[in-house]
Amino acid sequence: MKKIKMGMIGGGSGAFIGDAHRRASRICNDFELVGGVFSADFEKSKQFAKTEGISNNRCYPSVDAMIHAELALPLEERIELVAIVTPNALHFSFAKKLLLAGFHLVCEKPMTMTVDEAMELEKLVNQKKLTFALAHTYTGYPMVRQMKDLIAQGVLGTIQRIDAQYYQGWINSIIHGTESRITGVWRLEPEHAGISSCIGDIGVHAFNLIEYTTGLTIKQVLSDLNSVQKEVKLDLDATVLLRFSDNLKGVIRASQVCAGEENSLTIAVYGSKSSLKWEQENPNYLYLLSDSEPTKIYKPAHGYNEAFAEASHTMPSGHPEGIYEALANIYKGTAKSIRGVNFVPGEFPTVHEGLRGMKFIHSVIESNKLGNVWISI
Amino acid sequence: MKKIKMGMIGGGSGAFIGDAHRRASRICNDFELVGGVFSADFEKSKQFAKTEGISNNRCYPSVDAMIHAELALPLEERIELVAIVTPNALHFSFAKKLLLAGFHLVCEKPMTMTVDEAMELEKLVNQKKLTFALAHTYTGYPMVRQMKDLIAQGVLGTIQRIDAQYYQGWINSIIHGTESRITGVWRLEPEHAGISSCIGDIGVHAFNLIEYTTGLTIKQVLSDLNSVQKEVKLDLDATVLLRFSDNLKGVIRASQVCAGEENSLTIAVYGSKSSLKWEQENPNYLYLLSDSEPTKIYKPAHGYNEAFAEASHTMPSGHPEGIYEALANIYKGTAKSIRGVNFVPGEFPTVHEGLRGMKFIHSVIESNKLGNVWISI
Amino acid sequence: MKKIKMGMIGGGSGAFIGDAHRRASRICNDFELVGGVFSADFEKSKQFAKTEGISNNRCYPSVDAMIHAELALPLEERIELVAIVTPNALHFSFAKKLLLAGFHLVCEKPMTMTVDEAMELEKLVNQKKLTFALAHTYTGYPMVRQMKDLIAQGVLGTIQRIDAQYYQGWINSIIHGTESRITGVWRLEPEHAGISSCIGDIGVHAFNLIEYTTGLTIKQVLSDLNSVQKEVKLDLDATVLLRFSDNLKGVIRASQVCAGEENSLTIAVYGSKSSLKWEQENPNYLYLLSDSEPTKIYKPAHGYNEAFAEASHTMPSGHPEGIYEALANIYKGTAKSIRGVNFVPGEFPTVHEGLRGMKFIHSVIESNKLGNVWISI
Amino acid sequence: MKKIKMGMIGGGSGAFIGDAHRRASRICNDFELVGGVFSADFEKSKQFAKTEGISNNRCYPSVDAMIHAELALPLEERIELVAIVTPNALHFSFAKKLLLAGFHLVCEKPMTMTVDEAMELEKLVNQKKLTFALAHTYTGYPMVRQMKDLIAQGVLGTIQRIDAQYYQGWINSIIHGTESRITGVWRLEPEHAGISSCIGDIGVHAFNLIEYTTGLTIKQVLSDLNSVQKEVKLDLDATVLLRFSDNLKGVIRASQVCAGEENSLTIAVYGSKSSLKWEQENPNYLYLLSDSEPTKIYKPAHGYNEAFAEASHTMPSGHPEGIYEALANIYKGTAKSIRGVNFVPGEFPTVHEGLRGMKFIHSVIESNKLGNVWISI
Repeated sequence: MKKIKMGMIGGGSGAFIGDAHRRASRICNDFELVGGVFSADFEKSKQFAKTEGISNNRCYPSVDAMIHAELALPLEERIELVAIVTPNALHFSFAKKLLLAGFHLVCEKPMTMTVDEAMELEKLVNQKKLTFALAHTYTGYPMVRQMKDLIAQGVLGTIQRIDAQYYQGWINSIIHGTESRITGVWRLEPEHAGISSCIGDIGVHAFNLIEYTTGLTIKQVLSDLNSVQKEVKLDLDATVLLRFSDNLKGVIRASQVCAGEENSLTIAVYGSKSSLKWEQENPNYLYLLSDSEPTKIYKPAHGYNEAFAEASHTMPSGHPEGIYEALANIYKGTAKSIRGVNFVPGEFPTVHEGLRGMKFIHSVIESNKLGNVWISI
Repeated sequence: MKKIKMGMIGGGSGAFIGDAHRRASRICNDFELVGGVFSADFEKSKQFAKTEGISNNRCYPSVDAMIHAELALPLEERIELVAIVTPNALHFSFAKKLLLAGFHLVCEKPMTMTVDEAMELEKLVNQKKLTFALAHTYTGYPMVRQMKDLIAQGVLGTIQRIDAQYYQGWINSIIHGTESRITGVWRLEPEHAGISSCIGDIGVHAFNLIEYTTGLTIKQVLSDLNSVQKEVKLDLDATVLLRFSDNLKGVIRASQVCAGEENSLTIAVYGSKSSLKWEQENPNYLYLLSDSEPTKIYKPAHGYNEAFAEASHTMPSGHPEGIYEALANIYKGTAKSIRGVNFVPGEFPTVHEGLRGMKFIHSVIESNKLGNVWISI
Repeated sequence: MKKIKMGMIGGGSGAFIGDAHRRASRICNDFELVGGVFSADFEKSKQFAKTEGISNNRCYPSVDAMIHAELALPLEERIELVAIVTPNALHFSFAKKLLLAGFHLVCEKPMTMTVDEAMELEKLVNQKKLTFALAHTYTGYPMVRQMKDLIAQGVLGTIQRIDAQYYQGWINSIIHGTESRITGVWRLEPEHAGISSCIGDIGVHAFNLIEYTTGLTIKQVLSDLNSVQKEVKLDLDATVLLRFSDNLKGVIRASQVCAGEENSLTIAVYGSKSSLKWEQENPNYLYLLSDSEPTKIYKPAHGYNEAFAEASHTMPSGHPEGIYEALANIYKGTAKSIRGVNFVPGEFPTVHEGLRGMKFIHSVIESNKLGNVWISI
Repeated sequence: MKKIKMGMIGGGSGAFIGDAHRRASRICNDFELVGGVFSADFEKSKQFAKTEGISNNRCYPSVDAMIHAELALPLEERIELVAIVTPNALHFSFAKKLLLAGFHLVCEKPMTMTVDEAMELEKLVNQKKLTFALAHTYTGYPMVRQMKDLIAQGVLGTIQRIDAQYYQGWINSIIHGTESRITGVWRLEPEHAGISSCIGDIGVHAFNLIEYTTGLTIKQVLSDLNSVQKEVKLDLDATVLLRFSDNLKGVIRASQVCAGEENSLTIAVYGSKSSLKWEQENPNYLYLLSDSEPTKIYKPAHGYNEAFAEASHTMPSGHPEGIYEALANIYKGTAKSIRGVNFVPGEFPTVHEGLRGMKFIHSVIESNKLGNVWISI
């Protein structure tokens, strides 16, 4: 099958997330990276393009230049999909321009800086009928998809409690470092990261994972944030109470200062009949707990799984696939959507999930600012 | 060494917690159960005493009768320690009478029904200079004690976040059962259990574990409780935000409706340099995480442990001891305190921890009742 | 119920295994330790008896003296059960005397020094119709008993492979220590330990666990032993090929020089339909694997378990019981056998299992001596 | 950097291992698949090439045709590396032809059908100075490489025991299936698979992993094989005793009939000072055990790791990479070797490891045939 031509904004030398997108696009094998704006510094961008084997005449000095030049190419040579992997503050303006020019997008999260921007993007995507995938990578794991399907089938009974965690420790070396301290880490600077560090960078993944797997909508939040040190401007640590309905409550716990935690995103959904638990660091294990039967461990590549999970894993059982393959699954769904064939809702997070995420981030920040009160999302 | 004579209030046939106390007292081998009031029904009590090999003339119809008769015995035959293992509502009046009569006590938690009662007991214990041990059994585990000592040494650096969980699922079968439903389970009846089910029965263990291991004091709480079904009168599910100081926050999550969870008490204390994690269901593993070194797993019966942990485990390494041995360690400390030899603070939870627990329970209930606001403990 | 009076040979100050037997007997609550010969040194023995609260006139200078004195007591005061917890070389002569005198026995393993001795004991037990329990403690774990019952029901289909491991590391500090080296550790001295260290002390547990859980008989062994250092006289490390039948093979791996291993006894029984795996260090987890269903984790205190497993655990689920409780289950079965009520075969390893173990040990040593050839057990 | 042009023999539609190689080559991003012989059936091959976006004129009817045509191309268009992913029986003749024609190779294991063939290939590779990588994929995992480096540094002290396991269960559904039974699975047919199923397909991985991580040479083997059913012609289950030296013994356990096991390759290397353990199904955890310190868990993406391990993982810590990334690391090393830059021995298994593997397989089969005797490798 002919590969979809792909461009990239950001993700130059040293940017791990850009590299992740490129690998994922190669794994799923539906895309060919042909151009982009890999750095704000054009020289660096060109140097990087070279190492990637991208011809210099498709390494552009700006997004505008890229749009202009690509639109001038014949359709079959033209970039169809652009991956936006810049710091948060740049997502919106680039996404808007690219959508207006008719490009499909994969965008990193959080999608925008404000809720208004997110609403504008949602409207634009719907108007232009373009594919827009948000990089909530974790939804690409087979066992997350199995979890989603088991819950949709009602395996859990009535859901009674939801608990998600996203703990990391990497900010410690920054806030406790003697030299570099806070400067230079864009995630801690409001002008680049937006109004939140911990919730915006990782808490929102937990939020998305809850809504993705359960199909439920979080109605209200009450948050308690901690920036740990006076000179830190954004939240580094958060607990967020969740209300889904009168009888269903939950919690999201997120922190970037948990020394020694690596990337501990976990979710537990507890129902009246049984419960499901999953951990990102051991993504090929899904636990189904019940009061009356032995705990069951679901793993990929087994006939007992739902079709969606099985289609999201390629190796025989016991051959662990990881996060690149999860992101490749998001790209695979994006390709199917662009091609208009066999697309299954849920194969990638959409602009709508991006908007939900922005509402969540802003509600959480507001709740904390107002003194830990309930805010409707 | 001569055994300390022990009596018991409650804990008759079918009461698992009474059996646990008896086993623990036998394991530590410092006590001899010689009498008690095992049931409100005197006939049942006598029948039970028989199965335990306790002579009928020391099986009493009431606590008053027991006090009266025992005080009439010569000192060396007399019961010295009484274990109170009744439903919550009876703890206070029995404890008060027994303390006034000069008996040492082991008491189940929560210690009383109200904070005032708890304060009265604390005063009484201090006045009478008696030993009063509260059955926060989990503080008897060797690795919990190792955790306490490592934190006291400053291994973690500045503590930045604390997260404790206590999840169970056993109430599910009661609230979703078609027959028995709620009646008959005293833990769900305010007149027997007090003002709380989930927080009073298990949340308070998480609270105690935090204060025990870290030596810190929780200043304020903000809670969100859920009773899941309209006809349930008490909380079955809770999230409690914690404030220790301006820059140290935390959370306790507790629930009795997490289908398939057994007795999942966990604690994680995150510091600026490293972190410690422990789980009750796998009590012989203590994890020390750091950003710069491999995660370390501490286990009992090793020279690298502190003396307190080592004294709390008797078998060679790899021979798992469990919850009975943890409770036996509490009893061992109680015996040392009664005998006045070699007693180390921390070997059993005292009446002071009981008062702290009651304040916590009441603050949590009040916070929820007032609409999820901060309450000082 | 009246307690069975118990005596003990060996197990004085510092002997962990004697302490384990005493604790276990107290946990199960059917026994009362009233006398014994706790040390070859009578003074030490008396000193120890005192710390245990045993009256000095039942602390005997020798086994003969004990037999003589106890037989002179009225039946209802007399010791009924004697626990033999001496080094291996003494088991046989003491056991024989005690059986001839009509005492029931609990004996540590390996049961004797030679196969002939073991046969003699078996004959004696059968003749005298006495209860003889061998301390294969691990058969007392609830999940080992669940495993036995599941296999007996045919859950696994045809058994196709059996693999057991017993790895420890504690001998390292002895053979690599600069001072004490080998001397003083009786387990390494043939005159005290017998013909084997690794196989005799731990390999035989793995052997017993296989025959206990599967009900199968190992027909032949081919072993390869390693004593690691020239000056070590006994095996410290072993691999033993097993033949059950033409199409069923297996392996036992045992070692005392696996640095950092604590007490890693594991068993895996693989069948045509499904498989069962268990590990002693995490004894409350039993894994049922199959090619067509999610792996299932059995845990104690659940309605889905067989009656035997459920009767072997007393706490609610999630409250971990450990090795003392496993040994207490062996003692409980022994008490039931002595009392002649409700006894279920499998509740304790018998003299027959002791004989099987001795045959295994001798076959393994012979196979190695003859150059790694097949030896029939 | 310019991509190395790559061809493939085998690996057409439905062949998971061919797909794995293609993905791995794309992940490492040094290769571009431009042609090949994907199936013995030319039509199927062409159809498959189309789905991969490979131009039809480089989809060849035979290896000879491919060699002929490619050699006619200018150097910079020509295939440089060929991946051989056919059934075992075809490896040798294709590899020989391709080497003689000057192509670099990646070859699946086992490398050949006979030891002689393997020796011939080794000679050829050395003569032609070509790069030959054998797909012992597991050596590409970061933590396996960390293990290799820690052992090379002497962290373990004197190695005292080595134990490797490779258990799978997938053959069960074939030998116990009611329809298809044995036919149609080439791994069970001697003419396609060679003289061994279990040892040839998986046991050899365990063998390689031992020699790779320890740098030691296995001198002798004594094996016991089981084909489980009469009509099965090859081994499905094996235990292999290993001799490294007088005082170092070990064991490889491999089976394809362990119901429910997925791909359980594990290795444990026990030393006098400490030990290392690793499991393929959870490849990002490496355990360092010692008798005197807490067990340490090494994970990828940490400053405490050796450079080789760190270069083998790209994501930040806690983002699990899997088997495709391990194979990509093999391909990365192959590319560096072909390019002649920065190549580090150990970055891919060579033809020498292929020869060692063939010797191992043949020695194991011979040992069993001769009645479980020691055979020198």
